[in-house]
Amino acid sequence: MSPKKSANTLPAGFSFAAASCGIRDKGPSRRLDLGLIMADRPVAAAGVFTTNQVKAAPVLVSAEHLAASKGRVRAVVVNSGNANCATGARGMKDARSTAAALARELGCSAREILICSTGVIGVPLPAGRIIGALPQIAKAGGTNAESFDGFSRAIMTTDTRPKQAWASCRVGGKTVHLAGCAKGAGMIHPHMATMLAFIVTDAAASPAWLSRALRRAVAGTFNSITVDGDTSTNDTVFLLASGASGAPSLGSGSADERRFEKALEKVCQELALQIVADGEGAGRLVQVEVRGAPSDDAAKHVAETIANSPLVKTAFAGADPNWGRVLAAAGRAGVAFNPSRVRVWLADQLVLRKGQPLPFDEMDVHRRMLEPKVNVAIDLGAGRGRGRVWTCDLTVEYIRINASYRT
Amino acid sequence: MSPKKSANTLPAGFSFAAASCGIRDKGPSRRLDLGLIMADRPVAAAGVFTTNQVKAAPVLVSAEHLAASKGRVRAVVVNSGNANCATGARGMKDARSTAAALARELGCSAREILICSTGVIGVPLPAGRIIGALPQIAKAGGTNAESFDGFSRAIMTTDTRPKQAWASCRVGGKTVHLAGCAKGAGMIHPHMATMLAFIVTDAAASPAWLSRALRRAVAGTFNSITVDGDTSTNDTVFLLASGASGAPSLGSGSADERRFEKALEKVCQELALQIVADGEGAGRLVQVEVRGAPSDDAAKHVAETIANSPLVKTAFAGADPNWGRVLAAAGRAGVAFNPSRVRVWLADQLVLRKGQPLPFDEMDVHRRMLEPKVNVAIDLGAGRGRGRVWTCDLTVEYIRINASYRT
Repeated sequence: MSPKKSANTLPAGFSFAAASCGIRDKGPSRRLDLGLIMADRPVAAAGVFTTNQVKAAPVLVSAEHLAASKGRVRAVVVNSGNANCATGARGMKDARSTAAALARELGCSAREILICSTGVIGVPLPAGRIIGALPQIAKAGGTNAESFDGFSRAIMTTDTRPKQAWASCRVGGKTVHLAGCAKGAGMIHPHMATMLAFIVTDAAASPAWLSRALRRAVAGTFNSITVDGDTSTNDTVFLLASGASGAPSLGSGSADERRFEKALEKVCQELALQIVADGEGAGRLVQVEVRGAPSDDAAKHVAETIANSPLVKTAFAGADPNWGRVLAAAGRAGVAFNPSRVRVWLADQLVLRKGQPLPFDEMDVHRRMLEPKVNVAIDLGAGRGRGRVWTCDLTVEYIRINASYRT
Repeated sequence: MSPKKSANTLPAGFSFAAASCGIRDKGPSRRLDLGLIMADRPVAAAGVFTTNQVKAAPVLVSAEHLAASKGRVRAVVVNSGNANCATGARGMKDARSTAAALARELGCSAREILICSTGVIGVPLPAGRIIGALPQIAKAGGTNAESFDGFSRAIMTTDTRPKQAWASCRVGGKTVHLAGCAKGAGMIHPHMATMLAFIVTDAAASPAWLSRALRRAVAGTFNSITVDGDTSTNDTVFLLASGASGAPSLGSGSADERRFEKALEKVCQELALQIVADGEGAGRLVQVEVRGAPSDDAAKHVAETIANSPLVKTAFAGADPNWGRVLAAAGRAGVAFNPSRVRVWLADQLVLRKGQPLPFDEMDVHRRMLEPKVNVAIDLGAGRGRGRVWTCDLTVEYIRINASYRT
C-alpha cells in the first residue's frame, strides 16, 4: 500500500509532547501521564465518541468544542490515571479550565482545544497538576519519533505497551502520511471502550469529509473489537488533518479518496488489533467470523455474542478445543438458525458439519490454539450475512488486574 | 411460611436413586453421574426449557414427551458428564433409547419418561452405560433424605455442593410438601443456563395449572440469575405433582393457590440463589437492584448488564469499591437516563447522588464487600421501573475451571 521507506514518517504540521504531572503516580519515578498533540496552525478535525449514556466531562467538552470551532482545532491534551467521569459539575469545570489554560499557552481559543481523560471513574480530576504542567509541556513539542512515542506512552493505563500504526498514500501526485496511536486494555467493546485513539495526517480535507471517512473506518475496526463487553464512558477517536503535505484537498468519489480511506482503515485496523492483543491479561488475539447469517447485522451480533462469552474466552485462554461453547454462544444470540445446518471451524479445523461433530486431532488443534492469533468461524446456514469481530482470551491475569484496580 | 418440623419432609409419591455408570469418571472411585426420580404412578408434570437456538437432544425429547403424554409422567432420568448436545441424529437416538429402556423397566410408555443431560457438548453420549445401569437403579429407589441427597449429587458437574430447597403449605386443610434440587455452576444466565432443577410436590394440580405456576415462579428466580451471561443448550426445570398429600386439586384464584405459589417461589428462589452462590469460582453472591427505570423490563435489562459486566464482577472479587464500573455498565445498557439524576449504593452505602460522587469510608465499604452477600443498587431517576438480578463475582478460579474443562 505504501512504500516501505516512508511508512514511519510522521505527518508534517504536528508536534508531540509528554510529561509526568503526578496523576498516575506521585514520587520521583513517576510514569508519563500527560500527552499533548499540537498543530502548527488550526487543522481540520473529526471525532467519534462513546455511546455510553454516562459520558465523561472531557467527552462532553470535546464534542462541544468540535461543534463550536466547526472542526478546526489547534491541540489535543490527554491525561491518564483519572477519567474525570461521574465527577459532577466540578468535573466539567476541571475539563474547561484545562482547555482554557492550554488555549492561553498556545494563543488560541479554548474551543480549538480537544481534551481526553482515561483512568479511574468518580474521583475528582487533579486539574491543578495538569494546568501547572502545561506551560512547560506546551514548549516541549517535538516532531520526531521519540516525541510521538512519548505521547503514545503518556496515554497508557493498564496497557503493557504503546500502540502505533502508520500509513501513507498518494493524493494528487503528492505523498500524504498518516500516523496513529491508541490506548486500550480493558473496557473495550464495540462503540468505543476505554479506548483513546489519535490519528494525524498531513493530507488536506474538510472537517465534514474527515468525519465521514473516520466513521466509515471505525465501523469495521474500532467498533469490531471487544475485550470484555464493557463500553467506557470516555472513548474517543480523533482524526486531525494538517494539509501540510501540499496535496490537494480530498474530495468525494476520487481515486485519491479511496486510497486515503484505505490507508486510514489500515491505521485504524492495526491500532484496533493491537488494542485487543494487549487486552487486559490477554494471551492471544481471537478472530471470530460469522457467515451464513440472515443479515450482516445479525452476523456481527452473533460474532459479538461469541466474542464476549466468558466460557468461549476462557477456553481460548486454555487453548481448549471446546467448540461446543462457540455453538452454544451462537445459539443464545437471538438470531434464528437451524442447528442441523451449522458448520464450525476452530483454528481453521472443521469440527462440526450439518450439526454433526466431526472427529479431529484434538492435540493438533490445541497446539494451533496456542498461537498468538487464532481464528474461529461459524456458518449458520441461514443466509448470506457476514460479520467479523476480534477479541482476546480471558485469563487469570485479567481478574488480577481488575480485582484491585482502585484500592 | 411452613412449620419447621415439616420443612424437610419429602413429598409422598416419589422415590429417588443415584448411580455411577462411568460417564463422569472411569475407574473404581468414580463419582455419581446418573440420577432417577420415579413416581409411584403417572403424575402431573410441567417443564421450562432453554431458549437457546441450539437445544440438546434430551431437551427436544423431553418437550416432545411432555406434549405427547399431555403432562403425565412416571420418571425423570438425568446424567451428568455429557450434555448430549450437538451430537446430531445419533444424539436424538441415544436420548430416545435411554427413555425407552427406562420405560421398559418401569412398565410404562416412553413418552412418560423425561430426560436431562448436562456436561460437555459435542461428544457422543455413552448411552450404553446409562442403559446398562437402568435395571439396577430403577429398583434402588428410596424415599428418604439420603436417596434425595444421592440424586442431588448425581446431577452435579462443576458444582461444589448439592443444592436443595424445601417448603410446605396448607391446601384445603391438608399439608402439602415441596422439595427441589438443582445443579448450576457455569453457563448460568436468565432464560435457563446449564441449570437443571427438579421440584417435586405431593400437591394435586393439573399439568396446565402447574405449568402456569412454574412459569410465574421461574421469572423472578431462575430467570433472574446470571453467573457468566452464557445460556446453556440443556437447561430445564421440571415440576412434578403426585397429589399423594390427599389435598384437593389446586385451582385458580383461591387462597390455596396463592399459598402454593408462594411456597413454589420460595423453593425456586432458594435454589436459584444457591446456584449463584456456587457459581464457578464464586466467592460471593451479589444482588443487583435497579430502581427508577422507565419500565420494569428496562430495569431488569440494566440489572443484567451490570450483573454481567466482567469489570463489575472482578471488582466484587477484590471487594473493590469501584462503583464507577457499576455506573458505566448501566450507561451502556441501551436505556436512556440522565446521569445527573443517578444515585448509586454500594454495599448499602450511598456513593453517588445526583451524578455527584459522595465521600465515603472506602475501608468500611471494602470490609462490607468481603461478606458472602453484597448488595449494589442504582436509581436511574428515570421512572418507576424496578428489577433485581443476582450474580456472583468473577474470580481467578472461574478461569482456572473453564480454561481446561474439556482437555
